[in-house]
Parts: sequence; structure tokens; C-alpha cells
Amino acid sequence: MDATAAEGTVRVEVDLAGRSYDILIGDGLIASCGSEIARRMPSVRCAIVTDSNVAAAHLATLVESLERAGIESATITLDPGEKTKSFAALEAVVDGVLGARLERGDLVIALGGGVIGDLAGFAAGIVRRGMGFVQVPTSLLAQVDSSVGGKTGINTARGKNLVGLFHQPRLVVADTAALDTLPPREFRAGYAEVVKYGLIDRPDFFAWLEKDWRAVFTGGPARQRAIAESCRAKAEIVARDELETGERALLNLGHTFGHALEAATGYDGARLVHGEGVAVGMALAHRFSVRLNQCSADDAARVEAHLGEVGLPVRMADIPGSLPGAEQLLSYIAQDKKVLRGALTFILTRGIGRSYIARDVPASEVLSFIQENLPE
Amino acid sequence: MDATAAEGTVRVEVDLAGRSYDILIGDGLIASCGSEIARRMPSVRCAIVTDSNVAAAHLATLVESLERAGIESATITLDPGEKTKSFAALEAVVDGVLGARLERGDLVIALGGGVIGDLAGFAAGIVRRGMGFVQVPTSLLAQVDSSVGGKTGINTARGKNLVGLFHQPRLVVADTAALDTLPPREFRAGYAEVVKYGLIDRPDFFAWLEKDWRAVFTGGPARQRAIAESCRAKAEIVARDELETGERALLNLGHTFGHALEAATGYDGARLVHGEGVAVGMALAHRFSVRLNQCSADDAARVEAHLGEVGLPVRMADIPGSLPGAEQLLSYIAQDKKVLRGALTFILTRGIGRSYIARDVPASEVLSFIQENLPE
Repeated sequence: MDATAAEGTVRVEVDLAGRSYDILIGDGLIASCGSEIARRMPSVRCAIVTDSNVAAAHLATLVESLERAGIESATITLDPGEKTKSFAALEAVVDGVLGARLERGDLVIALGGGVIGDLAGFAAGIVRRGMGFVQVPTSLLAQVDSSVGGKTGINTARGKNLVGLFHQPRLVVADTAALDTLPPREFRAGYAEVVKYGLIDRPDFFAWLEKDWRAVFTGGPARQRAIAESCRAKAEIVARDELETGERALLNLGHTFGHALEAATGYDGARLVHGEGVAVGMALAHRFSVRLNQCSADDAARVEAHLGEVGLPVRMADIPGSLPGAEQLLSYIAQDKKVLRGALTFILTRGIGRSYIARDVPASEVLSFIQENLPE
Repeated sequence: MDATAAEGTVRVEVDLAGRSYDILIGDGLIASCGSEIARRMPSVRCAIVTDSNVAAAHLATLVESLERAGIESATITLDPGEKTKSFAALEAVVDGVLGARLERGDLVIALGGGVIGDLAGFAAGIVRRGMGFVQVPTSLLAQVDSSVGGKTGINTARGKNLVGLFHQPRLVVADTAALDTLPPREFRAGYAEVVKYGLIDRPDFFAWLEKDWRAVFTGGPARQRAIAESCRAKAEIVARDELETGERALLNLGHTFGHALEAATGYDGARLVHGEGVAVGMALAHRFSVRLNQCSADDAARVEAHLGEVGLPVRMADIPGSLPGAEQLLSYIAQDKKVLRGALTFILTRGIGRSYIARDVPASEVLSFIQENLPE
């Protein structure tokens, strides 16, 4: 474990020349946000961006913590849900931040899940051509994935996350206690991204999750360890390739198939949420790698068994409702922004913890594979 | 003069580690945009962003040039005028670029003045978290100022240019022939920014302008020299301080008073356009520096004489219509985004070509100065 910021708190550093920042992971950390911010950024003022659900649970704690540290804050509260990742909401947040008369050195604080973090980070990146930004992620998905690494963005009618920018936070505060109130399905979906880090390049972490996942779900030190290890994994990749010109694409493991399935289900969260799409996508990526003689069938089976055991979907047949045909699914993949000059780029694997970027996967192979795996 | 790209073309390099780019300045260059782009960025596709006025004059030339170089392009045509620097127009441009199915490595080309450049650059900076960007400025203001240095942005009800980002172009192509059709008032307004570079740190350039400004207005080699020298001056400052953490603020000479006067006239271009505000602002900055015993009265008089000779306004009394009182003008200055923690930051001068950043100018001094200079 890294050096601790406060008793029991784990600190992970994202090492970016001149813009390094800490991720703090611990129980009840929202209540010490004020002092952690004041220590690092004296005399800032803040605008908190949150949604009404998260506000009800955590806003008072955060505001009081800031007040105790002498930090003034305004609050911008949005509707919960993916629809909030829109141009309209971006404009509202920008107006709220400007209305609070914050300056370039002041802070936007994102208090919420991935939607709030992506939106608030985007706003922070464009108000006065870039303000300070702090992430206080309250979902597992946000704590292990979207709050780390500086990707921000919104959705448009043309697709998800096609508009945004890289804007690194100055601090990430992950309060593990905030996860206690998450609906089990949402926690599970976030867990898919935890598994992803094991599958990319940490086989020992994956083996530990296979063994101890129940403790991660229960809470306590195992959960904190899983979150910290995930942040460390992501931080290392981001430090080496901040702007995704290469290696960072590994973080898309499971996401090419996953995004296509999200699009194919009309982004209907009742049928499939993002983390579930990633779970199916990771299982498919392993099975596809077996078909291409890159990965052993045993490893693919282990991945599928573990994801299935925690209750995540692993096959297209696990998704409720009907799916479009194989050609249509392929067209969703070819629209994916990871497509480069028409060649299909996939994250494939040579086994558990041995993922790699394949830049020239023939579309015909993908099509046949989808046809074989589509439910009747 | 720098090495030439084509006969008679001047090349100025903006030296940014890993992201250096060329500014090409020459007669008729729009017709060679295609080959200049193809040479630097093989096999890109493009979306051209322009307004209906500029499109009528130059779009066909640009599109044909791209076609001759084998570069496919889509066009997004907007309404002319400052109102186009809005969230709504930004959303329209983003949608148009995504609709053209461009990828991260493809290009957004801004064909137009400062409004189009600022807006298209902003869109290029946020589509797919940052696409390539080329500036083809068609106004003098855009050629000597806004197209160089990577500042992009839009206006909101809270103020001008408060929302945007730094996104450097990969190439700037300044066709001096495009200026032949500019209305004289617009050319003159752009000329105020040319004078600015002399006043910041190039006294010899200012002296040359005093002597040869008529040739600059006529066109030909003197105009090209004035534009090239302006780009060189800006490029040097931007290379040393890309993100305006220090020295780049010198480029705001005349802009603090200027912005306040633009706001005070309701951004009504019939009364005052940006460059005219800068002209009055530069004259005021020099007179204010005289009042603070920083600059000689002779130098301030030279500045005023030159700006006045070319037909630019130099006093608040030169602005048609009535102005608000001194307190109101001061509040426009204090809202300016260059205000840091309530202290008033001004670009002052010790004489022609000797501007400097003053970070703690007492508001009371500014107020008295405005009171003395307001027309009855």
C-alpha cells in the first residue's frame, strides 16, 4: 500500500509531469474533502456540480467540510441520469460556474458518478480556458475508472462521449463509504471495470478477485484494496500515455463490443448498463481471441465463469429483449471512435492479464464471430 | 525574412515543443491551401467552417484547391457576425463535423475572420477530444492576432471569450489578397493590433509603421511585411508562454480598457468594433502610464498621433453615443477575466516598445483616471 494521507486512507499518485495529482481512497473521506483541498490549494473558491440523488445523500457533508476549511462554495444541482451528459447541461454548468464569479485558479468539484464527473470536468476544462477541477466520485464505476485520467465529455445524437476534452483533476477523493448505498446492480456493473484491470495486465489481481470478490462486495479493506489497485493500474497507463496515442487504448478492453451492444439496446439502462456491456464485451473479446488462436479456451472460460459468478451478463443471450442482426452490430462497431481509417481496432488478449491492441482485425472475422455468438 | 514556402510567401514558425506549426503569409495563398495541407498531413479529410459572406468570396477557391490535392471536404456555413460565437453555433459545428464522419487525425479548417476561427478552433478542440485544425484567416485582425496562438472560444451572456480552450492549429495560411475586399473600417480596426506589437516590444517596427503605414494599407510587400512581423511578434511570446501564465498577458495591451468600452457600448459594432476599442485602450494605457510617472508624455502623444492619423479613435470622446459613468466603467474592468483575486492587473508601459505587466494597480487610481478622461 502507498503512503497514507490519513489513517486508513490509501493514496495513489497519477504521475504527470507538472500536473501530478493524488487519488485518496478511504472510508468517510467526503467529510475531509475540505482539509484535503485547503492543504493542496490554499484560498480557492469552489462550485460543486452534483445531481439531486447524490445531493440528498452527500452534499451537506461536503459543504460542511469545505466550510470548516474556510472554503466558500456554490452548488449546481442537475437531474440524475445519462441524459444530463448533454450540450444543454454543459451550458447550464458553465453558466453556473461563471455566475459564481470563479476565477481561473478556482475549482469545480464533481460530486457524483460518471455522468457528473464527465460533465463537470468538461465544464471545468472550458470555463476561462481551463479551471481547477476535483473529482469526488460516489459510484464504483467513477471511483475505479471515469474519475481517473482526465477524460471528460458529453453525448450527442451522433454517439456517446464523442465530444469532450482531456482535463486532468487536481485531486480525486474516493469515499468508499459512499458505495454502501449503491443499488447492487450498479455496484456489480462498476465491478466489471475492476475485473478489467486484472485482465489487461494484472493476472495476480484477477486471481485474487476470483477468490475474494465476495469481500469486495461486502465492503471494508478488500473493497478499498480493489479500488486502490484499480486506480493504480489506470494511473500507470495514463501516466505513460495521457492522450491515448497508444497504450491507453488497452483500457478499452471489452468496450468495442460493449459500446456496440449499448447502442444496439438504445442505451436503455433497463436492459443493459455500461458496466454490463463491458462485462459481455470482455467475455466476447476473450472468446474472439480464442477464435483467432491468440488465447486459450481455458482462460476465456475462467473470465466468463468469474463474471457470471458475480452476476454479470457474459453472453449476448444474457441481454433481455431482442438484438439486431450481425451486420447491424458490426456497423455499430465500425462507428466506434476507435476505428482508424476503416481498419477495425480491437483489444485482444493472449490470456488473462495479457491484453494487446490489434489494429488490423478483418471486418469479415468480426462478422462471422458475431454471427456465431448471436442468440437464435 | 524567413525561408519561403513558395515564391513570395513568408513562413513564420510558432515554436511549441512537439506541436510547432507554420504560419504562411502571401498573396493568393487560399488557392494553394490544398497542397500545403497535403504536404504536411497526408490523407486527411476536412470539414471547412465558414460564414456566408466569406463563403461567397473564397469557398470555391479553397474547395478546388483541396480537391486538386486529393483532399475530400465537407462545408459548414454559418451566419456572419459576432452572434455566431455562441453555444448554439458551437453545437451546430460539432454536429456538422461528426456528421462528416471525420476522425481524430482529420482536420477542421476555419475559413473566415476571428469569429469563425475562434468558434471552429473550439469545436476542433472538443470533437473526439481534439482533432486537427487549420486556420485560413481572411481578415487582418485574424491574420495578425486571433489565428495565431491557439486561443479559441465563444461568448455567453456572462461575457465575451469566457468559455473556450487552448487548441493550437497545425497550420495557418494567411492570404494577403483576401484583405483587398475588406471594408476600410475593418482593415483599420485590425491594424490596431499590428500597432500593438510595436508598442509591446518592437519600437523599430512602430517607427516603421509611423513612416510607411500608407503602404501597409495599400497592399503589396509592405502589408505582407507588417503581417509577418506581427505574427513573428506574437509567435515569440506564445512560444515562451503558451497558456498565459505570465508574459503572454502583454498581448492584452489596450485590451483592459478596450473590453470595458466594448461592454459599455453593448458590443454594438456600429459604435465600436474590437480593434477600435483596442486603439482607444492603447492610447489610454499610455496616458495612464504617464499619469503613473512610468511613461513620457511625448511617447503617449506619438501613439495617439499615429493611431489618430490612420483614422482610429483614441479618446473615449471619439466613440459615438454616450458612455456610462466612471464607476460603471470600472466595474466592467473589474469583471474582466484578467482580474486576479480582486487586484487590478494592467498592461502599462515605460515608453514605446516597453510594455510591462502591472499586477497591483489600485482601483482608486484607475477610477480617477477614467473620471479625468471621460467626455463631459
